[in-house]
Parts: sequence; structure tokens; C-alpha cells
Amino acid sequence: MEATIDKLKERLGEVADVHAAINLLEWDQEVNMPPKAAEGRGQQLATLSAIHHRMFTNPEIGDMLHALSGDSLEGDDALLVSETLYDYEKETKLPESLVQDLAKHQSKAFGSWVKAREASDFSIFKDDLQTMVDLLKKNPDLLGYEDSPYDALLGEYERGMTTAKLREVFSTLAVEQSKILAQIMDSPNQPDDSWTNRSWDENTQLAFTLRVLEDMGYDFEAGRQDKSVHPFSIDFGMYDVRVTTRVSDRELFSALTGSVHEGGHALYEQGFRPEDARTTLGQAISLGIHESQSRMWENIIGRSRRFWDYYAPIMRDHFTGQMNQVTAEDFYRAVNKVEPSYIRVEADECTYNLHVILRFEIEADIIEGKLDVADVPDVWNAKFKDYLGIEVTDDAQGCLQDVHWSHGLMGYFPTYALGNLYASQMFDVIERDIPNLWDEIGQGNFSPLLEWLREHVHRVGRRRLASQLIEDISGRPLEAKPFLDYLRRKYGELYQL
Amino acid sequence: MEATIDKLKERLGEVADVHAAINLLEWDQEVNMPPKAAEGRGQQLATLSAIHHRMFTNPEIGDMLHALSGDSLEGDDALLVSETLYDYEKETKLPESLVQDLAKHQSKAFGSWVKAREASDFSIFKDDLQTMVDLLKKNPDLLGYEDSPYDALLGEYERGMTTAKLREVFSTLAVEQSKILAQIMDSPNQPDDSWTNRSWDENTQLAFTLRVLEDMGYDFEAGRQDKSVHPFSIDFGMYDVRVTTRVSDRELFSALTGSVHEGGHALYEQGFRPEDARTTLGQAISLGIHESQSRMWENIIGRSRRFWDYYAPIMRDHFTGQMNQVTAEDFYRAVNKVEPSYIRVEADECTYNLHVILRFEIEADIIEGKLDVADVPDVWNAKFKDYLGIEVTDDAQGCLQDVHWSHGLMGYFPTYALGNLYASQMFDVIERDIPNLWDEIGQGNFSPLLEWLREHVHRVGRRRLASQLIEDISGRPLEAKPFLDYLRRKYGELYQL
Repeated sequence: MEATIDKLKERLGEVADVHAAINLLEWDQEVNMPPKAAEGRGQQLATLSAIHHRMFTNPEIGDMLHALSGDSLEGDDALLVSETLYDYEKETKLPESLVQDLAKHQSKAFGSWVKAREASDFSIFKDDLQTMVDLLKKNPDLLGYEDSPYDALLGEYERGMTTAKLREVFSTLAVEQSKILAQIMDSPNQPDDSWTNRSWDENTQLAFTLRVLEDMGYDFEAGRQDKSVHPFSIDFGMYDVRVTTRVSDRELFSALTGSVHEGGHALYEQGFRPEDARTTLGQAISLGIHESQSRMWENIIGRSRRFWDYYAPIMRDHFTGQMNQVTAEDFYRAVNKVEPSYIRVEADECTYNLHVILRFEIEADIIEGKLDVADVPDVWNAKFKDYLGIEVTDDAQGCLQDVHWSHGLMGYFPTYALGNLYASQMFDVIERDIPNLWDEIGQGNFSPLLEWLREHVHRVGRRRLASQLIEDISGRPLEAKPFLDYLRRKYGELYQL
Repeated sequence: MEATIDKLKERLGEVADVHAAINLLEWDQEVNMPPKAAEGRGQQLATLSAIHHRMFTNPEIGDMLHALSGDSLEGDDALLVSETLYDYEKETKLPESLVQDLAKHQSKAFGSWVKAREASDFSIFKDDLQTMVDLLKKNPDLLGYEDSPYDALLGEYERGMTTAKLREVFSTLAVEQSKILAQIMDSPNQPDDSWTNRSWDENTQLAFTLRVLEDMGYDFEAGRQDKSVHPFSIDFGMYDVRVTTRVSDRELFSALTGSVHEGGHALYEQGFRPEDARTTLGQAISLGIHESQSRMWENIIGRSRRFWDYYAPIMRDHFTGQMNQVTAEDFYRAVNKVEPSYIRVEADECTYNLHVILRFEIEADIIEGKLDVADVPDVWNAKFKDYLGIEVTDDAQGCLQDVHWSHGLMGYFPTYALGNLYASQMFDVIERDIPNLWDEIGQGNFSPLLEWLREHVHRVGRRRLASQLIEDISGRPLEAKPFLDYLRRKYGELYQL
């Protein structure tokens, strides 16, 4: 018996090793790879991905899992088997032909999306998006679902989440966030961030991000930070979790917020239990929970007044003589400036979810057969006006801005907003559990917070579903209220609403 | 028919993709990896290496190769099949149990070698070296050989080379190089390189190496240079061939010679035929031929007077005001200073082969059963005194200095000296073929040289054996004379012998 669970772990470890190699190929592609290597790298990734799929769906693993399921395993061993069986059944349910069709169509759709965005003309992308939708619609039939076929797509990224639950929570959010946004835009108390409008040395910015990551508790002995076009975090096992950030001399806070966001992701991956390494339990619960970690650090902490009380003098030291007159309050107000804009990835805390919700509503309606692909631009623009109050005038700034649909990623966007909700719902508990939390943060001490996250989130690994975790922590199911309360409290004060 | 050779190429391409991933894991390990990732990286490398072995030795590939061998393929297709079959038979002849025993013992032997070197005590390493030798001695029986069992080990790195041939060429070299060295040491005309003895900015050194690599024709769109503890070059396909160098503020020429050496290796890999990419033909002939490329660039070119005529002003520009009085001749003399020393990797052109020859003689005698492992230190020290004229006083500076034996690498050392010989034998022809070669180099134009190497060496891929290539080029088999003539000419003039 023991031998078989050990054998399973050994096999899973090998699968994890191949996954680590895939991740390294991807990390290198974004960080180091010379341009002529692109085609070859694509082949290497395709080969390794196929090997990974074949290794994990090998019937020997299935046999082991079924044999072990019937046994009287307990505790972590039983959980390891059931979680792995869940993944195994999901991955074996999709026939290899469909996976290949999707992979092939991704290249084509990505190509036409690039062209369409350049020309700002949705019609160039329309047919390939339709084909992508047709392919994606096969998943629900193969994977199964209860109410909405979109549930099956959601489940790929946020297991257990339903379309109905999202429609309920997101509709409240859309209404209430739009109201808050309108109040903010009407407020006479707009922050002055004109002092940021100059050139800031990029190496100094990067040095400052390293200081903050170190303070957060990011372990540089088990990771590193590099530059890339889009910030991301990635792991090759829990002892090598890397982050990237982007840096521009025109944007004082872009590298910092990128680093703190990715640092939040990375702290999660560095915090799994060592005994879970290379197994199914040493993984994130869901993308939404992952995003709760990055957004808590980036927004609730990194855009807090106490954070800037501590870092204002340190940032002034870094940029000697260039921001002598800038106070902690100036930093705080500048990083929290609210402004509706077209582009999701540039959105602030008050508008971000609105960008996500409109994508979710469009995706869900398409997959449920309520919306034609051809009507996406019109619906996009109408919802945008409705939620964000501004007119979209071209597709490139509108429904063509994100790469996701060309990659076949539908059901993915909602996890971004879920991250915000989970983060606030958790954070209310954290503030109760750690009464002196903000005093510690005001002194640059993040370890009480990190310890709490380690215990209640990171070390849980995949032992709970997202819905269970949030109930374990807060005693309530997911809800919009904690996040809305947070926005009202913070921005009510900032903009004197 | 066509379908089957295409199928073979597809399979070989996938094997090459896994090899590329292994190389990336290794590159990253030396260049970027955080310390806590070491154990996990070892597991990843072991898993990927096992996958690579299983993929390549899959009987389906063997069946394809045998079927295709019986067919009337011609030209490159026929060569591709025969070269791949050669590799396939070699890799399938070694039972997996032996490969695993070797891999396991490598870790153990490496550990005891590290301890032994620290303590400068060969006796700590002796038993593990004996076990390694016993394991290595199984290879000749499995792989087959004609005269000496050491031939089989040599063949792993320098296919077709024999122990007898090496004994013949190396014994001449040992005698003649020792004579030249003795004359040099007796010469009153010793170069003065005391001006190099100061601190040199590391970033400036690196910037200079990038300039030289660019001039050599190294394609930075298909590669990059990073720093590492030991310089190396590595490829992930011919469109991603990377080099590393080491840099120390106390050593003005160490980064440069590292870069030029590794650049020579990299130019070879960047120069394969595009149609050979991801196949057996798009590979280096042998380690000796590979080393001929690095040593030609590092020594024959990079330590030439005309090279320094061109680069002296450029280097002075880099180190503004720090070497105003240093002439091209000063650079030339400083980079060619001869001095017998204990450590192979620090050896100059006149002594390098002597370090290699003594290792070869010891290895061959051990494998042929003429030398007991226990006697290695005594034999080492006696040969060292004989060839290099200095007394070895401790094992760490003597027979324990290199990692190779602990890794089971026997038959590998000779390829370092072969590189010098091949390079000189080729270069005599290059000088005849390109009459204005040195004038071009004196103007920083390396393209005539690179074009010649592309045509006669790089683009050949694995179409010829090393022995055939050197005969194709020079009309003669490998011999010691061209290298010895080169040394006598160059150092006779430098030291006025």
C-alpha cells in the first residue's frame, strides 16, 4: 500500500518536473530569448506540452488512482488521490484531437487578432473568434455541467464557481461600483499627481522594487526578479518562484505596482508546505484565490496610507533630491487616483471590476447562446458606456484589447474580479485577527500579515476549494459587500464623497 | 517512403526539443537559478534526461532506422539515417541499469571529490574513483573496441580517434612543448605585464567583450551573453546559442578570453545548415573539432599581434585614461605571457597541452590496467615535474583539480589538446586560402575567416568524421607539426629564442 502511494507521488513528481521545464521555457521566452529563437521555442513548448499530457493521462496513473481510491487511505494521502483523480478525469475527458484542434486554431486566431487590433477592425477577427467559440462549446458537453455550459469553462480556472453565482454577485458590483465611480468623477477633491510627470531613473525604480519585495518577505534565495514586457510570476517548484516587472521612466509607480502584485502571487507559491512539493496538493486552489493574494498586496496594502507612511522617506532616499517636497499623503493620493479609461490593465481599483464584469457578461451570453459573436462590439460599447461612463470609439481600445479570446481563454476573466472580492472578504478577518496590523505595516513590518496568509491560505495548498476556503476564513460565502465597503470607506475619505 | 524519412525527422525533432529543454535547465542553473532551487533542479534534469533517453531509444525509432537503412536513400537522407543509427546503437547498447549506476555513483563521487579537494587528500577520493573506473570499464565491453579499451571511452567524445594515434601524436608534443617551455623560461626577454596589476571596471570589461563578439560575427539575434562562474556555451537549437563569461576586476583579460573562446564555440553552432536544424546532421562532429573553433578564435586570432593592432585603441577608448601609455605591442606581449602553473584552466598556449597529455596518459593507463588508481598522485606529480618543470606539492593543485573524473568523464580531456592541433592544421590552409587574412583582421574584419569556417567546418555538420574533415581540409591526417611550428614561430619571436 505505502509503496503505491509512494509510486504515485514519484510519478506525479516526474510530471511536475516536466511542467517546471515548460514553465522555464516560457519564462525564458519572455525574459531572455533572442528573437530568432521564437519558432524553435514554439516547437519546444509544443513537444513538452504533449509529453506532459501523455505522462499525466497515462492509464497507469489512472489505474493507480482508481486502485488507491478504493483503499482506506486517510488524511493527506486520501486528498492527494481524490484531487489528482479530479485532474486526471478532466484531462482525459478531452480527446487529444480536440486539444490539437484548439492548439492549432489558437495560432490562427492569435494571428487574426493581432491584425484586427492593428487595424482596429473586429470584422477581421470575427470568423476566427466564432470558430474558437464553436470549439470551446464542445468542452461543456465533454466535461459536464449542471445549469449553464459556461460553468464548465469557469471550472477550468475557478472550480466550483457557477455562472449563476457570478451573475448575482457581479450585477450588484456593477451597479454599486458605477455609482461610486460617478460620485468620484463628480467630486471637486481630485488628487494632484502632476509632480509625477517627469522622467524617473529606471534602475532606481527597480532598486526600490527589490527593497519592497524583500520587506514583504519574498525569498530571493528561492526566486528572482527580472524585467519583461508584461509583468508575471511563474514557478519551477516552490523553491524557484520568479517574478517580473516592467519599468518605464515615465511611470513612477508602474514597476512598483507590478512587483508588489507579482510578489503577492509569488509569496503564495513560496508558501506551500514542503511536503506537498511536486504533488497535486502543492498547488494553488484556483486563479481567483491566486489573484486574491496579488491584489491584497498590490491594492489593500500597497495602496494604503500606512504603506506610504513607511515608504515615502525611503522612496525619497532612492530618488535623492527629486521628490523632497512630496509627502506620504501625496504618494497615497497619487497611487489612488481614479479615472475611467479604456484599457483594463491600466484600470484603478474603482473601475477594474467593471472591465471584468462586461467581459464576463459577454462571454457567458455567447456560450449560453444568447449573444452572436458578430454583435460583440456593439454590446461591448453599450456596456462600457453604461458601467464606465465613456464612449468606446474604436475596437482596438474596446473589444480587441485583450489577447485572451484569441487563446481560447473564456471563463478566465472573472477570476480577476474574484481576486478582489476574496481579498477584501479575507482582509476583514485579518484586521480582526491582528489588531495592530496597520501599526506594523506603518513600520514596514509585514510578517504578521504574511504569517496569517501562510497559515490560512498558502499552506492549505489544494486541500480546500475556493468556496470552502472563503467560508473557513470568513464564515460566509463569497459576497460583494466587503469589497464595496472597502471602496466606499477608502475612496469616500479620499475624495470626500 | 518520403513519409517515413519525414516521420523520422519529426521524431528526431521532438528528441531535440527535449534536449533543448535540458540545456535550458542547465544554462539557467549556472546563470540565474536561486540557491534553494538546486535540489529540485537536479530532479528536473534527471527526469528530463530519462525522458530523452526513452524517447530516443524507443524501438519505433530503431525500426524506422533499420527500415530506412535497407532502402535506397541517397545523399543527406542516407547520411541522416546512418548517423542516427550510429547514435541509436550506441545509446541502446548501454543497459539502463548501468546508466543509472553511473548516474548514482556520479553524485557520490562528486561529493567525495569535493571533500578530497578541500582537504587536498587524494585518499578521500580514491575508493570512489576506483568504483567509477570499474563502472567505466564496462563500457568498452558493451560498446566494443579494436585495440585498447580506452578507445571506446575516447569514441564517446572523439569518434574514430584511437589511443595508439594519441600516444603517437601526444608523445611528440610532450617532448617538443617541454623543450620550448624550457627555452622560454630561460629567455632573458620576459614580457612586462605589471601594468595590468590594478582594478579594471567589470562593466567596461563586459562592454568590450560584447564589441568583440559582435565583430567576430556572433549573432546576438540568435544568442546572448551572460555571466557565470565558469564560462561555457550552450545551445537550444541553432537559433539560440548562448555564451557566458566570467569577469573579475583583478584580471583584465579573463572576461575577454572567455568570451572569445565561447564565441568560437557558438559561431560553430550558429553556423549549421538551417535544413539540418533539429536533426542529427545539425550537430558538431566531435568535441575536438568543437574545441578547434574555440581555440582558433581565442588563441590564433585573439592572441595575435594583428588582433591587438586593431583592438588596442578600442580597448583604450573603453578604459578612458587608464591605459593611455599601453601600446598594441604591450597588449600582445601581456596576453601571451608564458608561465608554467599548476592549474590547467589557467594555462597558456605553450603549457596547456602538457596538462592534457599527462591526464590522458594516466587515464589510458588506468583503463588499460597498467596503472593502479592508488598510484595516481605519484604518477601525476612525476609527470608534472617532467613536462612542466615544477613540483606539485599538494593534491588539490595536482590530481584533484579537475571535476571530470568524479563525473565519470574519461576520454574527454584529450579533446582539449586535439582542438589546438586541429586548429593549427586548419589554420595553415586558411592562411593559404585567404592571402589578405591578416590585413583584414588588422582592420577588425573577421568575415573572410568566418566565411571560410562556415564553408569548410560549420556547414558540414555531422557529414564527416573529425579524421575525414582534417584530411579534407589539409590533405593530411592529424599531426603535431603545424601546432609545434606555430608555437616555435610565435614564441621564438616573442621571447627571442
